[in-house]
Amino acid sequence: MEQKHRFIPKNPDFHSRVETSFARQAAMNLIGAELVKVEPGEVEIELPFRSDLTQQHGFLHAGMVTTIVDNACGFAALSLMPPDASVLSVEFKVNLLSPAKGERFLARGKVLKPGQTITVCSGEVFSIGEGEPKLVATMLATLIMLQGRPGMVPG
Amino acid sequence: MEQKHRFIPKNPDFHSRVETSFARQAAMNLIGAELVKVEPGEVEIELPFRSDLTQQHGFLHAGMVTTIVDNACGFAALSLMPPDASVLSVEFKVNLLSPAKGERFLARGKVLKPGQTITVCSGEVFSIGEGEPKLVATMLATLIMLQGRPGMVPG
Amino acid sequence: MEQKHRFIPKNPDFHSRVETSFARQAAMNLIGAELVKVEPGEVEIELPFRSDLTQQHGFLHAGMVTTIVDNACGFAALSLMPPDASVLSVEFKVNLLSPAKGERFLARGKVLKPGQTITVCSGEVFSIGEGEPKLVATMLATLIMLQGRPGMVPG
Amino acid sequence: MEQKHRFIPKNPDFHSRVETSFARQAAMNLIGAELVKVEPGEVEIELPFRSDLTQQHGFLHAGMVTTIVDNACGFAALSLMPPDASVLSVEFKVNLLSPAKGERFLARGKVLKPGQTITVCSGEVFSIGEGEPKLVATMLATLIMLQGRPGMVPG
Repeated sequence: MEQKHRFIPKNPDFHSRVETSFARQAAMNLIGAELVKVEPGEVEIELPFRSDLTQQHGFLHAGMVTTIVDNACGFAALSLMPPDASVLSVEFKVNLLSPAKGERFLARGKVLKPGQTITVCSGEVFSIGEGEPKLVATMLATLIMLQGRPGMVPG
Repeated sequence: MEQKHRFIPKNPDFHSRVETSFARQAAMNLIGAELVKVEPGEVEIELPFRSDLTQQHGFLHAGMVTTIVDNACGFAALSLMPPDASVLSVEFKVNLLSPAKGERFLARGKVLKPGQTITVCSGEVFSIGEGEPKLVATMLATLIMLQGRPGMVPG
Repeated sequence: MEQKHRFIPKNPDFHSRVETSFARQAAMNLIGAELVKVEPGEVEIELPFRSDLTQQHGFLHAGMVTTIVDNACGFAALSLMPPDASVLSVEFKVNLLSPAKGERFLARGKVLKPGQTITVCSGEVFSIGEGEPKLVATMLATLIMLQGRPGMVPG
Repeated sequence: MEQKHRFIPKNPDFHSRVETSFARQAAMNLIGAELVKVEPGEVEIELPFRSDLTQQHGFLHAGMVTTIVDNACGFAALSLMPPDASVLSVEFKVNLLSPAKGERFLARGKVLKPGQTITVCSGEVFSIGEGEPKLVATMLATLIMLQGRPGMVPG
């Protein structure tokens, strides 16, 4: 009993839409994150390790782990929304499964359930370095679609 | 039916302990966060707004909101732990209640339930600017105490 | 920096509205839960201990703890909604702080942030018996208001 | 980048261990839930629809949905623990994706990350009736292993 998802995007330009919105996030530039995959309902973001992103034990800070996977979930949701929509995170939960050490980190967000108002996504963060990639965090997130808010750019 | 908490710290130097651990977090320096209050079971962190910390609508990025409140919760937990202990976030959930706009942001973490192994904290983030401070996010977090891990500095 | 909430209900009959909706929940009758307080944005539900509600160690099952506090949060949200609205839980997180043993349990739900679409509530469950009431669980919940859905009774 | 899990149980009698613990849960009997699958790190529980388990719109109550998936996660964690261990839920988050209507409900819990102290599980609930099974809820849960607590039966 598995559910397979093949999502049909409502915005044919979903890819450039996500790229534009990502580029507008100054925080992504600050931490050095890159958008590496955009498919309907699935987005990946990569973050190379940097020592100025760490917590007290020298691992990637849980807040940075959250930043990239929150974004991966948000853009996965946005990829299925109509052209004039904006997406906001309502809430998320993150479990930190292993210390976030590695050369770089890959955050993947997937839409579990798209909706007219509410979209639910799951997210994962893998650390990549020597050996097999390792799952370091998992997210379950709720997002909301906003339409027609004056002064709010889509994205 | 309210529960009042007056916590007795196991480490008389809990204040400098939290300060030292905070200072070791390179990510706090990167984003410009400051430790502004350390009491037994309660910690506050302040983050001035900066345009390089924003998401696509120009508000403070949810990941940055999470970074400071995760830390406030973690250090609130650490303030009640013995001198040789380390603290790690097991998981947290954040509800984003209002757009994070303001001149600065105050994250407050409080211990709800300290434990031998598991500590549960609640966190809040307020935006401060014109008018009344506004609650922009609330967190419920689970932390774990580690002791005697070789190679892991306390904090 | 505390936020005080005095909520003005949009439905003057909010009290009977919550009572009617509660009475329609067959599950409340099955487990023996009672509605004991309804104020704008705050609801309390009481559940006497029964041995057929327990988990393997003889404590109240976490699912039953969740059932009453999910309801307390849902009805707290409903108490602030207009007469024709329905409320549904989008998601919740529960931390189980202490074994749920006691003669009875009090679940309290409070609105943290009411909204046009999304309402965020916090919930607590106390065990009551000998000695002081004890906090056994805490919830952070997201609810959605539905209006004008044919075939869906308000509540 | 997927992580495959083949777990080796520490207790060769994990199956009867889970069955015994399940049978000791009076709440499972009250609501009519049945244990239908026990594998290392994966457990399924089925719950036939009953009108006395419903909320105000006649769907299965979110608390009952949570009860079965919390159990599926807890027993999935227990299936990988040594014979003298007990398992308790530390916390969980549930997203309710669709109204829980159907003839019966299948809750599946899977271990994402087993640990010496903390185990993290994901859970799903499907509604089964006419047509395809439908995902109605998803859980992300943190559990703790207890050993050597006097007066606490394993399970």
